[in-house]
Amino acid sequence: MKTLQIQLLLTGDELMSGDIVDSNSAMIAKKLQQAGYRVSKRVTVGDDVALLQQEIAVLSAASDVLIINGGLGPTVDDLTAEVLAQVAGQPLEEHAEAISHLESWCANRNFKLDAPNRKQAMLPKGVTIVPNPVGSAVGFSVDHNNCWVVCTPGVPSELEKMLDQTILQEISTRFPSLEKTSVFHLPVFGLGESKVQQMISEAMPDWPDTVELGFRASLPIIDVKLTTNTYEGEKARTVCLARLKMLLGAHIISDQEETLPQRVVGLLQQQGKTLATAESCTGGLIASQITSVAGASSVFEMGVVSYSNRIKSHLLDVEPEVIERQGAVSCEVVHQMAQGALSKSGSDYCIAVSGVAGPGGGTDEKPVGTVWVAWGDSQKIETEILYFPGPRGYFQQIVAAVGLDLIRRRLLSIEEEPLYFKQRKFKGAR
Amino acid sequence: MKTLQIQLLLTGDELMSGDIVDSNSAMIAKKLQQAGYRVSKRVTVGDDVALLQQEIAVLSAASDVLIINGGLGPTVDDLTAEVLAQVAGQPLEEHAEAISHLESWCANRNFKLDAPNRKQAMLPKGVTIVPNPVGSAVGFSVDHNNCWVVCTPGVPSELEKMLDQTILQEISTRFPSLEKTSVFHLPVFGLGESKVQQMISEAMPDWPDTVELGFRASLPIIDVKLTTNTYEGEKARTVCLARLKMLLGAHIISDQEETLPQRVVGLLQQQGKTLATAESCTGGLIASQITSVAGASSVFEMGVVSYSNRIKSHLLDVEPEVIERQGAVSCEVVHQMAQGALSKSGSDYCIAVSGVAGPGGGTDEKPVGTVWVAWGDSQKIETEILYFPGPRGYFQQIVAAVGLDLIRRRLLSIEEEPLYFKQRKFKGAR
Repeated sequence: MKTLQIQLLLTGDELMSGDIVDSNSAMIAKKLQQAGYRVSKRVTVGDDVALLQQEIAVLSAASDVLIINGGLGPTVDDLTAEVLAQVAGQPLEEHAEAISHLESWCANRNFKLDAPNRKQAMLPKGVTIVPNPVGSAVGFSVDHNNCWVVCTPGVPSELEKMLDQTILQEISTRFPSLEKTSVFHLPVFGLGESKVQQMISEAMPDWPDTVELGFRASLPIIDVKLTTNTYEGEKARTVCLARLKMLLGAHIISDQEETLPQRVVGLLQQQGKTLATAESCTGGLIASQITSVAGASSVFEMGVVSYSNRIKSHLLDVEPEVIERQGAVSCEVVHQMAQGALSKSGSDYCIAVSGVAGPGGGTDEKPVGTVWVAWGDSQKIETEILYFPGPRGYFQQIVAAVGLDLIRRRLLSIEEEPLYFKQRKFKGAR
Repeated sequence: MKTLQIQLLLTGDELMSGDIVDSNSAMIAKKLQQAGYRVSKRVTVGDDVALLQQEIAVLSAASDVLIINGGLGPTVDDLTAEVLAQVAGQPLEEHAEAISHLESWCANRNFKLDAPNRKQAMLPKGVTIVPNPVGSAVGFSVDHNNCWVVCTPGVPSELEKMLDQTILQEISTRFPSLEKTSVFHLPVFGLGESKVQQMISEAMPDWPDTVELGFRASLPIIDVKLTTNTYEGEKARTVCLARLKMLLGAHIISDQEETLPQRVVGLLQQQGKTLATAESCTGGLIASQITSVAGASSVFEMGVVSYSNRIKSHLLDVEPEVIERQGAVSCEVVHQMAQGALSKSGSDYCIAVSGVAGPGGGTDEKPVGTVWVAWGDSQKIETEILYFPGPRGYFQQIVAAVGLDLIRRRLLSIEEEPLYFKQRKFKGAR
């Protein structure tokens, strides 16, 4: 069976200049994949009439579906309607359905329909409107070169609604008899990609052909991906998953495709327990990741970002003499921060971190990348010193993940020490 | 003068499936742009030998520089070296420089050089190594089709070092006489893209041809972009900038291309002042954004994430009777949170927020999207109720930006009320 060719064309100077990171194509691909389709190729160009014309001609000739994203906005650099009109050999005209959408959109917001917004209703003659339940720019589609070409807005929330409410349905109506590809993700923390690959190669040399093995390093998390598109593959994957769980053990964050914060919130909910955080070097990142999960309020009591020594003493009852004697980045201080977080919040569990995020503030004894972590409950607070040299953002991300992972392990009563204690242990002064 | 053609080819199933968002191409484009170069086109395909071969052939024929990113890792789905060897008609062989790099990389980490890592030294015969000062995979380059083809790893920190230390230098050595394009960004908060475009069209109909006007909506921030590539353009841009500052006034976050958190940290540093935060619905996002800025420790004292009512009273001295009477999302509570943040931390300024992030927890009286904000100093704490209905992540991002923007305005003694007070004011129960 010929595979359906779906291609993407993204447009925007901001995508070419590096001003923004393109998250839309990932959203489109993810939703298509969930529906059983794959994107074969994607091309990104700036707001340039000639380049856009050329790419639309080439891509539409080579695909069954071409999704164009971006360039529908109200400003001068939004060119998609104009270019598509030229490619399709149709004039631009004010589209009645688009104008009535714009009018009600403005009326709902007490805005006047201004000239830049009105431009968004000038569309190639004969297009079909793709409704936009969120924003001002409607999408539109046309058949060209024996390809269904659909133009979508760059604003992610608007794109998402159009995909969910119109585009996916239209694709499955037009191309119903498809092989469905399904992907299962196993998120892993604390093992590198090379290590995971080696473990799998050694332990499972009989890996089945029907299950495609892949990796995605979204550091500090590694996702092991198992893709299949047959019924036999699905059965084989069930066996692979069971073996992978044995092999990777406690390094697997979740077998339900949850993120690390989702997993921690879920475990706390299941056990009816609460958590508090006391953060220094991560500056609220752990609290922020936990509270990004809907429903976190049932398990998260308190976060303290104790950036100054005074606050460590004042809010978390860390003894000033201990800070004076040992320094803020020390075993005793992080232990007292954890104790303070428990006693101040009345929570069941706590995470505390204190480290040197850099770029400034490092010393020979405690260089940038050094971090003390404390975690546990009122029965037992554990501490560890680790070393993650690198840029500030990287350090904050990995320390936040370590804190969450240690609480996950405690909630699951995992006795085994994580591998990163050995590999990332701080080895003392430089 | 013929413009230098630089194109990118990104590879990875994870980029096609939507599993990860591609931030590398933005990094490459940004660094090239800072050096005066533009990327004209970028193509992304999965880990597929035939597709990769085809794209390398097509792109290298049409460009002067082709940067390939991804597929250099140790795992089975990393195909770049193999494909490039086929395209260039060279055998794969173990490259001495790559092996010695891998050996020292492993030795520094007490790792054994395993088979998956050793695969990273199997490169097309005759390539030039691009050193990787961070990770295990070296990059490499080759001249093919009269195009300089350079292969780089997918891990962002490794890619970044290669660009900075080798690739940008090599491009400017090979193609020295270039027109330099320069872009200036003016970040704006509190005005929509259409509104900004309309204001500019009306107030500046004589906009000069030598300055290209563009927009980037990285919500909730809008960047106004002024691009030029001539000396006359630069002079004209200086005039445009002065007029835009008059026109957009206090909505401009910074005229130094700073982010909102960078601007707030910078103003606090200039004025020798300190800040504390008391967050409920944003869950630490404001503190986390502030502390993502290097040097924040000199101005940020304390953040409290008071997710439960008990913590609001316990850590921030909010009166329990007030919470009981008015509810946690109320003017009095957020005011007392702000006062508590000031008195507990001894900071000069504070931001406090309490709202309904959703998806649960909304009522008819206080629906999802309602938020009370308080900000100020010991002389004057102001409060406001706003309404941002939408997904949890969107709500948290915009409320964090509002909090930071209000402190920015206070630090600059801006008297004028922000437009969003009028447009986004909560209008009472549904």
